[in-house]
Amino acid sequence: MIVTALTEMFGLTHPIVLGPMGGVSGGRLAAAVSNAGGLGLVGGGYGDPAWLRTELSRVSEDTPRPWGVGLITWSVDRSVLELALSYRPAAFLLSFGDPRPYASAIKSAGCKLICQVQDIDQALVAREAGADIIVAEGTEAGGHAGARATLPLVPAVADAVAPLPVVAAGGIADGRGLAAALMLGAHGVLMGTRFYASAEALGHERAKERIIAAKGGETAQTRVFDIVRGYAWPKVFPGRALRNRFLERWNGRESELNAALDSERSAYQRAAKEGDFDTAVVWAGEAVDLIQRIDSAGALVARICEEAEGILRAGARLVR
Amino acid sequence: MIVTALTEMFGLTHPIVLGPMGGVSGGRLAAAVSNAGGLGLVGGGYGDPAWLRTELSRVSEDTPRPWGVGLITWSVDRSVLELALSYRPAAFLLSFGDPRPYASAIKSAGCKLICQVQDIDQALVAREAGADIIVAEGTEAGGHAGARATLPLVPAVADAVAPLPVVAAGGIADGRGLAAALMLGAHGVLMGTRFYASAEALGHERAKERIIAAKGGETAQTRVFDIVRGYAWPKVFPGRALRNRFLERWNGRESELNAALDSERSAYQRAAKEGDFDTAVVWAGEAVDLIQRIDSAGALVARICEEAEGILRAGARLVR
Repeated sequence: MIVTALTEMFGLTHPIVLGPMGGVSGGRLAAAVSNAGGLGLVGGGYGDPAWLRTELSRVSEDTPRPWGVGLITWSVDRSVLELALSYRPAAFLLSFGDPRPYASAIKSAGCKLICQVQDIDQALVAREAGADIIVAEGTEAGGHAGARATLPLVPAVADAVAPLPVVAAGGIADGRGLAAALMLGAHGVLMGTRFYASAEALGHERAKERIIAAKGGETAQTRVFDIVRGYAWPKVFPGRALRNRFLERWNGRESELNAALDSERSAYQRAAKEGDFDTAVVWAGEAVDLIQRIDSAGALVARICEEAEGILRAGARLVR
Repeated sequence: MIVTALTEMFGLTHPIVLGPMGGVSGGRLAAAVSNAGGLGLVGGGYGDPAWLRTELSRVSEDTPRPWGVGLITWSVDRSVLELALSYRPAAFLLSFGDPRPYASAIKSAGCKLICQVQDIDQALVAREAGADIIVAEGTEAGGHAGARATLPLVPAVADAVAPLPVVAAGGIADGRGLAAALMLGAHGVLMGTRFYASAEALGHERAKERIIAAKGGETAQTRVFDIVRGYAWPKVFPGRALRNRFLERWNGRESELNAALDSERSAYQRAAKEGDFDTAVVWAGEAVDLIQRIDSAGALVARICEEAEGILRAGARLVR
């Protein structure tokens, strides 16, 4: 096992956090990560109450270990926040917006507040909000992210918020990435894309297969999927997805897409329903190069930590 | 000391390579890095013969240890390549283009070929060219770079070219970055921006001061400085620089800048001569957050390695 401030805070055996991917990180996946000794976070996304009830019931039933939930800060509805807290999560992750209006409700429920940030200024706001952990998310992450890259961002955030523990996110999919994150001053990693390609993830099997097949150069940050789906994401948070026909057609032509929404939205929704990923989005980070197959989430947690342990031990032997 | 395939290849005591920054990494800086136990590379840039003669004479005189030289592959002139080889460098770095036409001249001179790449496909070409070392350069690097971020790129390149040794570049400025790079499977790091802010760098003092003052969010990849200077860089290799008035004015308006070159170029050249960095470029990577002062290059090499050694030892102790 690897011992850090993150593992000690939650009693984990592995410093691995499941990225709360909306619609993908359901209760089954979160429970699998927690049962394996990591911290599973259910991806509450835009906060659909029915979905949350189903998945939070599931995770509560499937694991006796600490688990958590994540919401998109700019879309948080206070009643949804209260609904999620009623399931007694050990951790609540907020990302993409100002966490200060929600911090006291979370913390006074006895829940740890994890704030995911994309730059230093946001990290300072998160500290002010009373975050217990800061996740520094690099631009190479799958899904929504900012512009700063993980490798230089993590130590800069760690310096800015010390002694608060920092967790690294973006571009990490194996034990090498975990070991590297610990060297950068992080106390653990948050991984999304790697767990998307797991047996327990709620995503479509064809989406998982595309992640396995893709190379890191085949991802791009884009706003076109948010536009066609009708989500008002702040422009500073584009989403990284696998390039597909829809992205190639519309990326850079966002105003034309806005003008064509009447027909494009219905076609998109049909494609999403049918699992047609030439049109529908597959959020994925640049670490897809390192993802070769669909595994069970528990096996992933164990393997990644075992690999990291070996690398950490070998690293010390490089010093003469 | 830290022992890797890189240090063993050149008899180094520290796995640190000086980025061959054109016009900044002169003979004095390269010699200082080599004398400190790293590998100093003179930044030959576009290959000005007079500049190269001065700086390669200087490095030859100033250090008895291995040193090297770098050129921009797409701009290589064969006579300049021969000129550089006549000074008997131990290493020759080529970046930004196809190295295959130049590999045999370099290798048959008894010089190690280092190919810097920005994606996996280029790494495979570099291996085919007979590269002895591959530098995987992430998008967070200062100066010209590609689109892939360092943290996921390095292990993917290492997997693609194994067992060739890989060096990590982009976003690295301290011992944390060096230790992290080694965990990712790299055998060392190449650092540019950190050495730009050194006493021995040829850059203008006011440029160095801007690097010290800047934050990582204040850099951007852009083509405007190449356009105004008249360099025909391939579009896939923008340059990362500190945001300044010139960048804010022209970035995204490249065709208008092209149309205004008659007046803009002379104004730019005047600004560059006068050290007016509201207009002239300061190439810098996202790691500027981690650069707090101007140091001597030798002290930097020693301090960064000492820090990395401590972190590597501490990393092994996290494993229980």
